[in-house]
Amino acid sequence: MSPERFERIQLMLSQRQPDLTVCMEGVHKPHNLSAIIRTCDAVGVSEAHVVWADAQSKLSGGTAMGSQNWVQVKPHANIADAVATLKSQGMQVLATNLSETAVDFRSIDYTKPTAVLMGQEKDGISQEALALADQDIIVPMVGMVQSLNVSVASALIMYEAQRQREIAGMYQGPCRLSVEEQNRILFEGGHP
Amino acid sequence: MSPERFERIQLMLSQRQPDLTVCMEGVHKPHNLSAIIRTCDAVGVSEAHVVWADAQSKLSGGTAMGSQNWVQVKPHANIADAVATLKSQGMQVLATNLSETAVDFRSIDYTKPTAVLMGQEKDGISQEALALADQDIIVPMVGMVQSLNVSVASALIMYEAQRQREIAGMYQGPCRLSVEEQNRILFEGGHP
Ligand SMILES: C[S@@+](CC[C@H](N)C(=O)[O-])C[C@H]1O[C@@H](n2cnc3c(N)ncnc32)[C@H](O)[C@@H]1O
Ligand SMILES: C[S@@+](CC[C@H](N)C(=O)[O-])C[C@H]1O[C@@H](n2cnc3c(N)ncnc32)[C@H](O)[C@@H]1O
Repeated sequence: MSPERFERIQLMLSQRQPDLTVCMEGVHKPHNLSAIIRTCDAVGVSEAHVVWADAQSKLSGGTAMGSQNWVQVKPHANIADAVATLKSQGMQVLATNLSETAVDFRSIDYTKPTAVLMGQEKDGISQEALALADQDIIVPMVGMVQSLNVSVASALIMYEAQRQREIAGMYQGPCRLSVEEQNRILFEGGHP
Repeated sequence: MSPERFERIQLMLSQRQPDLTVCMEGVHKPHNLSAIIRTCDAVGVSEAHVVWADAQSKLSGGTAMGSQNWVQVKPHANIADAVATLKSQGMQVLATNLSETAVDFRSIDYTKPTAVLMGQEKDGISQEALALADQDIIVPMVGMVQSLNVSVASALIMYEAQRQREIAGMYQGPCRLSVEEQNRILFEGGHP
């Protein structure tokens, strides 16, 4: 690995946000999964979650632009397991939902450890996921269509988190990943 | 048309932003075009532009979720014509571009009349478009991938515009579309 590439990866690692993640519940279109993983990489999410048995294979179809190498995708057999994992990591769990009770996504404090649940393209998020989440959030819309594309909605939320964390200085300072994790990424990404 | 639907459309019309738009230069994947048009509708963009001869037909493939009925898509034969049209409407023209000289998208004043140029999935924006634009802008990224999905990038910029315009009170107050335009939309959308 060239010194430039080593430095580039080190810089990226130092900006990773281990306490920010998304969990996709049944999102299945490859171009949506790929776009979401790409956005994860761009805001420093190092691990994303999917509730979908064969998630990893679904990623190969779309234009993930190599981001799979840099964002770990953790599959879960069901939403209860996924949320239990996220809560065991001390995360607030936010469910995106097109309801009257959902609060504006910009009113949330994303400097807290946060996981955002995204719903399936057609059916949206499950009742079970809603019940398990701490809060539901919505991206405001003033048009006639009922919803945004799922990769668009997730990006808006992740970049609001990025904005708040940038201001809070969370992209500066020492790397927050474990040494093992850093070494794994350096090894896998550095020698493709 | 039911009174409820009439009222819903009237409310939507009153929040339309005739001085905010996007122009897609060669964006051709149906799911991207559809996602962008859906976001246009959601933030109140009533007219979008494409530089692409058979643009209208490309929209039918993806999940535009009926937003084509609510957002006019204006095709242009080339980028020079498109930018000339936008500038004749008094718009600042911003080109999205992954360069060192591009400024952070959040540093722009979107309460001014604004058009945002989006580039093609693979090749990005053309040199000609860059030369014609007033300013180039970038969405910051801290990962390893080189770019975001085009519908994701455009949504981040449109929602930054929405945020600024909401604060400036631009979604309140009387409808800013012409009476002819209001009637056309009421007629076409009200009687599908
Ligand atoms: C196409 S939408 C699903 C629509 C579905 N008919 C429903 O009622 O939930 C797919 C996913 O995108 C996300 N989404 C779309 N628009 C959103 C918005 N305005 N606010 C928050 N999340 C949104 C949610 O995660 C949603 O489950
Ligand atoms: C996949 S990108 C094109 C990548 C192309 N290789 C390049 O160098 O421009 C497609 C379009 O998405 C938009 N885009 C993607 N990432 C962006 C970012 N970080 N900032 C601004 N626009 C972006 C731009 O309009 C770009 O032309």
